[in-house]
Amino acid sequence: MTVTRTTVGIVGAGPAGLMLSHLLARAGIDTVAVDHRTRHEIETTHRAGILERDSVRLLVDAGVSSRVLTDGHEHRGIDLRFGGESHRIDFQGLAGASTWLYPQTDVFTDLADARARDGGDVRFGVRGTTVADVTGSPFIRYADDRGTVHEISCDYLVGADGSRSICRHEVPDAVRRRHHREYPYAWFGILCRAPASAPELIYTRSDRGFALISQRTEAVQRMYLQCDPSTDPADWSDDRIWSELQARLAGTDGFRLHEGPIFDKTVLPFRSFVQEPLRHGRLLLAGDAAHTVPPTGAKGLNLALADVRVLAEVLELAVRHDDPDALDGYTRRALTRVWKAQHFSYWMTTMLHVPPGADAFDLRRQEGELAMLVASESGRRYLAEGYTGWPAV
Amino acid sequence: MTVTRTTVGIVGAGPAGLMLSHLLARAGIDTVAVDHRTRHEIETTHRAGILERDSVRLLVDAGVSSRVLTDGHEHRGIDLRFGGESHRIDFQGLAGASTWLYPQTDVFTDLADARARDGGDVRFGVRGTTVADVTGSPFIRYADDRGTVHEISCDYLVGADGSRSICRHEVPDAVRRRHHREYPYAWFGILCRAPASAPELIYTRSDRGFALISQRTEAVQRMYLQCDPSTDPADWSDDRIWSELQARLAGTDGFRLHEGPIFDKTVLPFRSFVQEPLRHGRLLLAGDAAHTVPPTGAKGLNLALADVRVLAEVLELAVRHDDPDALDGYTRRALTRVWKAQHFSYWMTTMLHVPPGADAFDLRRQEGELAMLVASESGRRYLAEGYTGWPAV
Repeated sequence: MTVTRTTVGIVGAGPAGLMLSHLLARAGIDTVAVDHRTRHEIETTHRAGILERDSVRLLVDAGVSSRVLTDGHEHRGIDLRFGGESHRIDFQGLAGASTWLYPQTDVFTDLADARARDGGDVRFGVRGTTVADVTGSPFIRYADDRGTVHEISCDYLVGADGSRSICRHEVPDAVRRRHHREYPYAWFGILCRAPASAPELIYTRSDRGFALISQRTEAVQRMYLQCDPSTDPADWSDDRIWSELQARLAGTDGFRLHEGPIFDKTVLPFRSFVQEPLRHGRLLLAGDAAHTVPPTGAKGLNLALADVRVLAEVLELAVRHDDPDALDGYTRRALTRVWKAQHFSYWMTTMLHVPPGADAFDLRRQEGELAMLVASESGRRYLAEGYTGWPAV
Repeated sequence: MTVTRTTVGIVGAGPAGLMLSHLLARAGIDTVAVDHRTRHEIETTHRAGILERDSVRLLVDAGVSSRVLTDGHEHRGIDLRFGGESHRIDFQGLAGASTWLYPQTDVFTDLADARARDGGDVRFGVRGTTVADVTGSPFIRYADDRGTVHEISCDYLVGADGSRSICRHEVPDAVRRRHHREYPYAWFGILCRAPASAPELIYTRSDRGFALISQRTEAVQRMYLQCDPSTDPADWSDDRIWSELQARLAGTDGFRLHEGPIFDKTVLPFRSFVQEPLRHGRLLLAGDAAHTVPPTGAKGLNLALADVRVLAEVLELAVRHDDPDALDGYTRRALTRVWKAQHFSYWMTTMLHVPPGADAFDLRRQEGELAMLVASESGRRYLAEGYTGWPAV
């Protein structure tokens, strides 16, 4: 067995874990991050791609990525489409902010490159990770390819290990509160080879259900359809997918999607989850390990980065003054944003998705909500503020 | 049988029917309005008391009431209370508008007085009202105290006869669409003799449920508690009511309600209803006859007056040019507001009431919504605009 001693041990080397490791390194604090996935696995798993203003600022200001500004696409607004018409939500005009289309895999690559460049200790593809003694002298243990056991002993342990987190189970049941919400629908996501049908995102509500038109590159597009959670992608031919997408987007303005060969079909789960508190002893949870939101509000990655921004700040204080009490405010500060984001995601979801068994009252009320929203500058601004991200707390 | 010939026959002489009669009289158009209730019955039935800005303007500008400005109370905002703290929604600062506390019974009295003063033909306490031939030559029939049958023959027939409307059933089932929503709670309303606990309305959410603190006069207060629809007021002693109200209002600021003897206890039903279209042939529906909203948004009376404002306009055109097609736009114009108001009422209701069986996720998400709302000037303004009323369409 090898033993490494570090200040902050991080389980999970996705964007949250690597960003924390990067920020702490800049503050002169040692970290070791481990992940059971290989770098290649993480880089080839397609995930969300909308960054809030402050997420972009963090990437740029922390010296992680200037590529987001050159290879990413600034979105100065979105279209809300309903009743067969598009209504622009002008983020810049309303909230003075943009979002950026920049895939999570690119964020990860930038972070992994920055950590490698700066000599950060990041260990991918580790096996059988366990953690222990989170209220005393925490440590992480794992095995390498050859079966050698490694131990990382640390002052503070961060669980940034995603929605299947092992770390969150170190908070005893007597202490933790877990909040779940299942939604009665899922997203059917496709990737296709076609030119973009629109320069920015289109969030569409029709009586047939929700659809989202997004982009990936000039030649590859990402689109989503509200579907039943039990949907089997194999049951959906390209023709059926295009015909359903076109029907949900159809309108009085003659808008048509550019079609092309579909090369990826996935059904995305749809749920809300929060575990509280985010701190237990010397263990801190960040990102999907502590909370999951449905994808409609594009909040998942942004929430993880916001957690990490606060966490780096309080960890720096705790380490510098050897004072674990400096971590006290983390749960409250992070959860204030998390519950706003849970609500924002719930709001965007319930406003735009048609629940199974919806009656005419539900459908007309949804149209009434959308009409009330787009007719009001303050309504549009309220949505724009939430979508582009609330200021740091 | 006596026969009266008029241009517009109006069933229902509540605020909607009388306001229409008044506005048409100012345009030189004859009306006859009938109601099965006596004037005394209407004047002694307590109803809502919050008027939107444009409702007050209509009462004043149409010469119905200057009393609303002297006897009514201008409310420049409301308090949203949750998590044991009050957050002011400053209507004037946010939307440049106030609402007015002025009971519906006073609105009715002003209208009935104005109609009497101007010689309007308003017949209270009629019996056995029926209407017929709404796509041909409409007429109203009723009997008086002595059993004499009276017929009012008219060019246009308006159903302003409230939530138990007989007129709305003249729209054939093949034509009308009816949208219902039941809510899993009701309001327990009380009147008590006590000084006001606050100068303006307090909308409170606690994990125990919703409460609304309102006022009636200097010495009489109106308060409401979210309750189960099956609640029997007889099961609630004064002590139990005060203890529950105090618990829902309790907070870190030490706020306490002024208590006093309770002399009226009622359980208010809670539902949404819309019947479309609002026009069928020469029949037009207005107010509660066509739509009901839950009381949380204080929209019921205001919607009725907004209907009537549009209706008077299109009826004047139809009569002047002998052209029933002038009525075509009424349904669309009125329903645009109605569905916004249905949503607004639904929003205020679901944001502030605790649904039966709510789990911790629901409760925390509600708190997240309220936190997101009050932290955002545009969120507060969006609410203020909706509450004080959207501009005329």
